Amino acid sequence: MDEQDQPTAGLLLIGDELLSGRTRDKNFPVIAEFLSARGVDLCEVRVVPDKQEEIIAAVDALRHRYSYVLTTGGIGPTHDDITADAIAAAFGVEVHEHPDAAASLMKLFAENGVEPNAARMRMARVPVGARLITSDKIKAPGFNIGNVFVMAGVPQIMVLMLEAVGLMIEHGQPMLSRSVRIERGEGDLAGPLKSLQEQFPDVSIGSYPFKEGAVFGANIVMRSRDEGRLEKVYKKVQALV
Amino acid sequence: MDEQDQPTAGLLLIGDELLSGRTRDKNFPVIAEFLSARGVDLCEVRVVPDKQEEIIAAVDALRHRYSYVLTTGGIGPTHDDITADAIAAAFGVEVHEHPDAAASLMKLFAENGVEPNAARMRMARVPVGARLITSDKIKAPGFNIGNVFVMAGVPQIMVLMLEAVGLMIEHGQPMLSRSVRIERGEGDLAGPLKSLQEQFPDVSIGSYPFKEGAVFGANIVMRSRDEGRLEKVYKKVQALV
Repeated sequence: MDEQDQPTAGLLLIGDELLSGRTRDKNFPVIAEFLSARGVDLCEVRVVPDKQEEIIAAVDALRHRYSYVLTTGGIGPTHDDITADAIAAAFGVEVHEHPDAAASLMKLFAENGVEPNAARMRMARVPVGARLITSDKIKAPGFNIGNVFVMAGVPQIMVLMLEAVGLMIEHGQPMLSRSVRIERGEGDLAGPLKSLQEQFPDVSIGSYPFKEGAVFGANIVMRSRDEGRLEKVYKKVQALV
Repeated sequence: MDEQDQPTAGLLLIGDELLSGRTRDKNFPVIAEFLSARGVDLCEVRVVPDKQEEIIAAVDALRHRYSYVLTTGGIGPTHDDITADAIAAAFGVEVHEHPDAAASLMKLFAENGVEPNAARMRMARVPVGARLITSDKIKAPGFNIGNVFVMAGVPQIMVLMLEAVGLMIEHGQPMLSRSVRIERGEGDLAGPLKSLQEQFPDVSIGSYPFKEGAVFGANIVMRSRDEGRLEKVYKKVQALV
């Protein structure tokens, strides 16, 4: 069911606070929907702590496998923000202060009347060869090197960077989907759905059970890039329920 | 900052619907908090699609590295529920119908007046050698083989299984934490926090920025299993702000 010519992506969420349960990640679903709408297949997500060797291992695993890798977290001014250094190490390059990033930070600090101290200026540090992920709404930019796009972890900032990343990556043909909701156990339909999946191997058929109060049910979701095939399966599923 | 004798865990979320952005995962934060409270360090999370080879690769990567692996998703009755087969393949064993699981499913189906068809009975299939994850609240059980614990994806069912898993795994000494909230840029404190981290390498100090409406701020979070050391750092952070 894969199409070889569709761009793919891996996502890496970086941060001890996600793994400890202290902070609930909000970025994964937003990024998943964003990529999906642009025809980029998100194939894998990993969450790792703020440890250089873990970040490097995960970035290396993902960047050799997918068209793009997006990361969130670890690009602030404090000592636990080590993403720029880890990505540079993964690519075997040094880190330097990017003049455009430094200029936009200096402007931001002047506007806000805060001191441009050494820690704050760390946010202008990017791997040598990286280009900035920026826009007129982004004050402290993210960066891109190779096929890796490094974004902030704060959701309101991440989403601005994601919009900018959307302009930097190749889009694919969006996956089309149809969904049928049933309010009974999916076991009723499991046999016929299996036959249908065998008959239409190019249309992915998933059954996603839910429980809402006392109601058990499932969403039968069909996905394909071919509208005709999708509609054919959709009609057959509708006829089943 | 790691303690060698603390149990560790990896988490594997299985499901196309999570990666497509259709369904927002709710299990990761719940499991992260649950393990944290029991002194089990969650070290890594991965999200993979409903593809056997992807599930096997991820389970193998995680189970050799951490004390425990917890998985969610893919244990229902439909053709896309392939977790039991994938885990069996990872362990190099066959899948069989577990008599206790079959009995509890038959009871459930009789109670609900549904037909115990072949698809529904798939939910009793577990790898040979697996024991059930069950309780008096769980109708269709999960299973445990080796250090891998396989749970449902539906959050209301997952949480029942997680309670049962809590009784099956070894607990560690819970991580203690203290937190100080600041309502200004974390850049102000970055220098002193770095010095403090160097002075107390055994207490993890993280700075987690947030944006709430127009307010930018950060939570400075200190974590340690040694209460005395934690309080010492906490007082020093309080003195900084």
